[in-house]
Amino acid sequence: MRERWIDVLLVTASENLYYFTGYDAWSFYVHQMGIVALDADEPILVLRDQDTPCAEFTAFVAPENVIGYPERFIGDRALHVMSFIADLLRERAWDAGTVGVEMDSHFFTARCYQQLTSELVDADLLVNWVWTVKSAAEIAYMRQAGVIAGLAMAAAREHIRPGVRECDAAARVMDAMIEGTPEFGGDLPPAGEFLMSPGEKATEPHLVWTDAPFAIDVAVNVELGGCRKRYNAGLARTLHLGTPPAELLALQNVVNDGMETALSAVRPGVTAESIEAAWRREISKAGYDTTSRIGYSIELACATTWIDRTVSLKQGDTTVLESGMTFHMICGRWKGAHNLEFSETFRVPETGHELLTDFPRQILTADA
Amino acid sequence: MRERWIDVLLVTASENLYYFTGYDAWSFYVHQMGIVALDADEPILVLRDQDTPCAEFTAFVAPENVIGYPERFIGDRALHVMSFIADLLRERAWDAGTVGVEMDSHFFTARCYQQLTSELVDADLLVNWVWTVKSAAEIAYMRQAGVIAGLAMAAAREHIRPGVRECDAAARVMDAMIEGTPEFGGDLPPAGEFLMSPGEKATEPHLVWTDAPFAIDVAVNVELGGCRKRYNAGLARTLHLGTPPAELLALQNVVNDGMETALSAVRPGVTAESIEAAWRREISKAGYDTTSRIGYSIELACATTWIDRTVSLKQGDTTVLESGMTFHMICGRWKGAHNLEFSETFRVPETGHELLTDFPRQILTADA
Repeated sequence: MRERWIDVLLVTASENLYYFTGYDAWSFYVHQMGIVALDADEPILVLRDQDTPCAEFTAFVAPENVIGYPERFIGDRALHVMSFIADLLRERAWDAGTVGVEMDSHFFTARCYQQLTSELVDADLLVNWVWTVKSAAEIAYMRQAGVIAGLAMAAAREHIRPGVRECDAAARVMDAMIEGTPEFGGDLPPAGEFLMSPGEKATEPHLVWTDAPFAIDVAVNVELGGCRKRYNAGLARTLHLGTPPAELLALQNVVNDGMETALSAVRPGVTAESIEAAWRREISKAGYDTTSRIGYSIELACATTWIDRTVSLKQGDTTVLESGMTFHMICGRWKGAHNLEFSETFRVPETGHELLTDFPRQILTADA
Repeated sequence: MRERWIDVLLVTASENLYYFTGYDAWSFYVHQMGIVALDADEPILVLRDQDTPCAEFTAFVAPENVIGYPERFIGDRALHVMSFIADLLRERAWDAGTVGVEMDSHFFTARCYQQLTSELVDADLLVNWVWTVKSAAEIAYMRQAGVIAGLAMAAAREHIRPGVRECDAAARVMDAMIEGTPEFGGDLPPAGEFLMSPGEKATEPHLVWTDAPFAIDVAVNVELGGCRKRYNAGLARTLHLGTPPAELLALQNVVNDGMETALSAVRPGVTAESIEAAWRREISKAGYDTTSRIGYSIELACATTWIDRTVSLKQGDTTVLESGMTFHMICGRWKGAHNLEFSETFRVPETGHELLTDFPRQILTADA
């Protein structure tokens, strides 16, 4: 904050409230805010009045630092919570310095911005860059998330079968995500749903389930994740209902070689773009080209996505990898008659990489 | 739009894209937009390039009206998608007139606003007000959502028991929400998780599950919903693990009387605030007072919440109820030693009200 001349930082994303205060409740659909001031001992939480008891239970800030705003701000077309926040900033003389806000956070809408007319600078991603490097405790949660992701993928392999309705298989997978293991339970991943694109829809990466039954002789791309204490691990595999055609098996080899090459390039000190370049170079040997990014920083996340907006494994991202960073790498081909998708979540240790997900990296098959 | 002098309307909320175009994919975590122009035949969809195949599958607009923006806009700290949109508006001469935007939508961030420097007016909620009055087809989906909500509540009653971990019960409830019935499957409700506040946490309305086991002799407030083709029905009940104390049973009578009185006050032509007033007047006879709103318009919703920001059943909301409107009414007491929560989803027909949820409105009990 000092480096960026920010005196008071206003955070709105749920994961940032969680990170600064431990606050963990499903109340993000109303406006709420964390205020981090250089001259205050600890962060201030501003919540809807009725949600302040949730803070007593989950947050580690002192009760006097949890401030509720009255119910009259809810569902009102004229009053806006940011007026309440502006008053609070004025009251504590925090409007005099430079106030930083997260300009592109889903929870800091255009109207929020308009309402806060004081000195604003864009502090979007300031918190996120701090947490790209994870502590041992954070990695431990991500490991557990990786275990849950594996259990969920096992459920997908078991229940996605010809004739089964997509929603019924989805229910079983969701079950595995939430139940977790006897030692630790799961949270719902931030995007809520997991994604599966069966058959002719397999070229469409972001569809969700319907109540149609799965057909035979189709590929189903499954993207899912485990979530533990809001820390995430992503995992994707392609299932084939029936015997995989030879072309798909050939594609599997290409993707696996490319992914292995990219993972082998991971170590502290190299750039994010060099990992993507390694993948692209390898698959070009088999005649494929690509422009998509192949991964992103993954970590703590609340709704609406686990994709962190800091580091991308893509052309032009010159961020230097550091020990303690974690990524979700997704490699595949979504175009043409055959397509395939494999992903892994890994961390950057002192040397090389370490997978946090553990599931056979091959086309999963299900008999009719 | 004409009444509000808007020539071009930019919509960003997922549910508005769905409403205007049928587009239904889990891609809202990147910027996307629907453009409704008075001088165009149909809406334009602007999506990330890789998501345009999803539009071919789900949207009913012509292929030339689905416009993909290049991958270079993804995960980039300098480039912003709104620059692409601004170019498009200029290209079609849509920057000359008045452009309406949804100022308080989660998907129209402060940065989006800042980037679009042309003539802006606040069109937030314009779409939402249109859909407060539902067609017969929309009501049919909400009825199915009501059935799913009942099945999910039955799962909660069956699985929330002393000694069971919260996450294991949550998995079963989520299962029921997604599996639906043999005739129709469920979607995941927009908030993703359902809420349950057991025991001493029962005064905290918006907590989610942990992996701790349920204790005995505690009340558990369960808020859940059914979701069908993105149309929602909410349902809340209080469970008691063990024999409910006499005070809780007495409170049940108060809440039921108040809720019955409020529901009886519903009909076309009365104001939203009069429904809340009926509730407040009735429970005041038993010595209770309250200031919270008791309900809101509910309908089509994608992430992050099913709570529509139009009509609230609260003091000061003078919206006149019309036939075809639908509400989620939540009545209860969250303060003090005993607390209780019942909710129903209902529609306003030509006369009176009609419940879309169907579950015994009483404290649900589970033996040890």
